[in-house]
Amino acid sequence: MASGKILVAQGGGPTAVINQSLVGVVLEARRHRDVRLVYGARHGVRGIVDEDFVDLTRETSHNLEHVAGTPSSALGSTRDKPDLAYCQDIFKVLQAHEIEHFFYIGGNDSADTVRIVSQEAHKAGYPLRCIHIPKTIDNDLVGNDHTPGFPSAARFVAQAFAGANLDNAALPGVYVGVVMGRHAGFLTAASALGKKFPDDGPHLIYLPERVFEIDRFLADVKAAYERHGRCVIAVSEGIHDASGAPVAAQLMKDLERDAHGNVQLSGTGALADLLCEEIKAKLKIKRVRGDTFGYLQRSFIGCVSDVDQREAREVGEKAVQFAMWGQNGQARDGSVAIKRTGFYSVDYELQPLDAVAAKTRTMEDAFIAPSGTDVTDAFRLYLRPLLGSGMPDAFRLRPNPVPKVLKR
Amino acid sequence: MASGKILVAQGGGPTAVINQSLVGVVLEARRHRDVRLVYGARHGVRGIVDEDFVDLTRETSHNLEHVAGTPSSALGSTRDKPDLAYCQDIFKVLQAHEIEHFFYIGGNDSADTVRIVSQEAHKAGYPLRCIHIPKTIDNDLVGNDHTPGFPSAARFVAQAFAGANLDNAALPGVYVGVVMGRHAGFLTAASALGKKFPDDGPHLIYLPERVFEIDRFLADVKAAYERHGRCVIAVSEGIHDASGAPVAAQLMKDLERDAHGNVQLSGTGALADLLCEEIKAKLKIKRVRGDTFGYLQRSFIGCVSDVDQREAREVGEKAVQFAMWGQNGQARDGSVAIKRTGFYSVDYELQPLDAVAAKTRTMEDAFIAPSGTDVTDAFRLYLRPLLGSGMPDAFRLRPNPVPKVLKR
Repeated sequence: MASGKILVAQGGGPTAVINQSLVGVVLEARRHRDVRLVYGARHGVRGIVDEDFVDLTRETSHNLEHVAGTPSSALGSTRDKPDLAYCQDIFKVLQAHEIEHFFYIGGNDSADTVRIVSQEAHKAGYPLRCIHIPKTIDNDLVGNDHTPGFPSAARFVAQAFAGANLDNAALPGVYVGVVMGRHAGFLTAASALGKKFPDDGPHLIYLPERVFEIDRFLADVKAAYERHGRCVIAVSEGIHDASGAPVAAQLMKDLERDAHGNVQLSGTGALADLLCEEIKAKLKIKRVRGDTFGYLQRSFIGCVSDVDQREAREVGEKAVQFAMWGQNGQARDGSVAIKRTGFYSVDYELQPLDAVAAKTRTMEDAFIAPSGTDVTDAFRLYLRPLLGSGMPDAFRLRPNPVPKVLKR
Repeated sequence: MASGKILVAQGGGPTAVINQSLVGVVLEARRHRDVRLVYGARHGVRGIVDEDFVDLTRETSHNLEHVAGTPSSALGSTRDKPDLAYCQDIFKVLQAHEIEHFFYIGGNDSADTVRIVSQEAHKAGYPLRCIHIPKTIDNDLVGNDHTPGFPSAARFVAQAFAGANLDNAALPGVYVGVVMGRHAGFLTAASALGKKFPDDGPHLIYLPERVFEIDRFLADVKAAYERHGRCVIAVSEGIHDASGAPVAAQLMKDLERDAHGNVQLSGTGALADLLCEEIKAKLKIKRVRGDTFGYLQRSFIGCVSDVDQREAREVGEKAVQFAMWGQNGQARDGSVAIKRTGFYSVDYELQPLDAVAAKTRTMEDAFIAPSGTDVTDAFRLYLRPLLGSGMPDAFRLRPNPVPKVLKR
């Protein structure tokens, strides 16, 4: 092949470290003498069919390093979920621009796009190498120990609950924090890593992996409130009843659905507000406050795991290496996966695209306590190293009571 | 006097650095030979009337330093707003325990409590020295350049909007972020410090210092959206119409007229949700997302200004020095105030209690742009040094467009 052109794009929700993967691809590709031009598509697959490309060969390495440290998708992203015809359009553009390697950074829907484009190229006998690079704060990609983006979002959630717990201890009441994660509860469960002292919150954690019953919820809150004089609760936006209907969706005026047919769950405070109203009305507790972490948990600048940064960079670099040299001498299309090898160390593998595409991982049973409202030590052991170095720690005054004089 | 006892307490909403002030009082007091015992009241004035004291003399300096670095009120706080009878009860307890110095860390309501207790002591001829130590994320204390707690909350808001802007640039649409501050817009205005490039958001900022008109708001959003293809908006929770009525209540009436569902939106997420609904309905923009920063902006652990930490510590230390030695040789009760002396340096003064008590500072006109939806350079110059060192910076790829081939 003579064109020496590669294309990289970013899809789905941005993360704190998705630009590390982008820059990993660009810098690694630029050191290969077979690569002449590195293109980036603006706004994911949408930019491909629109031929909206930027020439990343012309970026300084210095600026690329700074972009790598900036959260969100520097190339822009998209919520488009391509069908076959869309993927055929993608392939036509790649062919017209003589792209030899296509790298798409995204979640399981993005992996499915890469899978279909790869099939189209194969059918057409066009030698295109297609690599999916994992990214999602939901941590819901199968075959991965975890996904880049999740550790930093988990760190935000853990720090947020560590702080919310301190606030709630100072001004006791009930606090409900709603966390992203439609099907997988990993990010909500990360709230448990904000606990230090035995009576710290979150005292209750509600995950989409377990059926949510409002009566059971109220009984749990009542018990925790009576025990601690306060209660901090972590709730996944994806909690649903026994029929599978999202609790959040029951509130929406207009059931806004995205291109994937999913009900819009983020960007609204309705679920937190509903749960607070229920607690106030049924348990007669006066001070009840709800927060929806919303876009802060994936976009907040300045809260990032150094482990996540490092791994996100490496999946980008490894993607190029797998594309150029294959795995174990066998070159093929695939999805880069993180495999845990020690406590704590990782290595990277190339998985078949259909092993990852359009599949959803949820929290393993071993990570969820029998109560259904807490995590296990296995989960703590799993998550702690991912949060990275320099996690803030909370301290408290020790009880040294002073005898009363008036004793009224 | 021979008791050598001092009492310190924390009131109102917690901040990221209120424990610096507490520890400043304790450590400074412990080095005075006239001080024998340092008591802390649990949960502010509530703990005083309940005689719920801890002996801080028994705390290790080491643990105190760690507590100083922990956000929220380590002694606990209260929302009680004492009237005269309540303040008389406070005084009786202070008298019974032979307290000689009373330090209360809080906002303008707490300053008013200190003022009344000081009067009661004076009337009774009891030699009690009463000092108010400033604290509030709202920055609404008069006579202060700024208040401890505000810089760290402002840093959170600036970082949050810097990230939200990047997220919004990647997936264009309208983003509404609702920020705390019922009467003063300082914290909402801090969102402007998240801007770097000229087209960065927030593109519009709505403050309680200006009347909010929904039609004007929609016209502003429309214009910004047409100009940038997206729009990031910072809104104070305290925005109100010309009659002073909160906007949330006004919009809720409109929604009831639409007669949807039976769920009453009346929680922390309501204002953001209602503004998003208006934008969707009236401007026909599809992707509209709202976040309410809620308790995260005052409790998030790990986002703190080092300038704020330092000053919060010093107001605590200075409070003890003013109590022991007076100001300019003149010992009296008062409120510690931060005065700016250079760019950037500060010093501390003791103000009369009635100069601060129950008064509210709002944003000066010189800080608000004539449009009413932006801040001035004077505000940027005012706020920037307070945010402290190590503010995260955002970088972007430069435009290097690639010629189209298919040109469809």
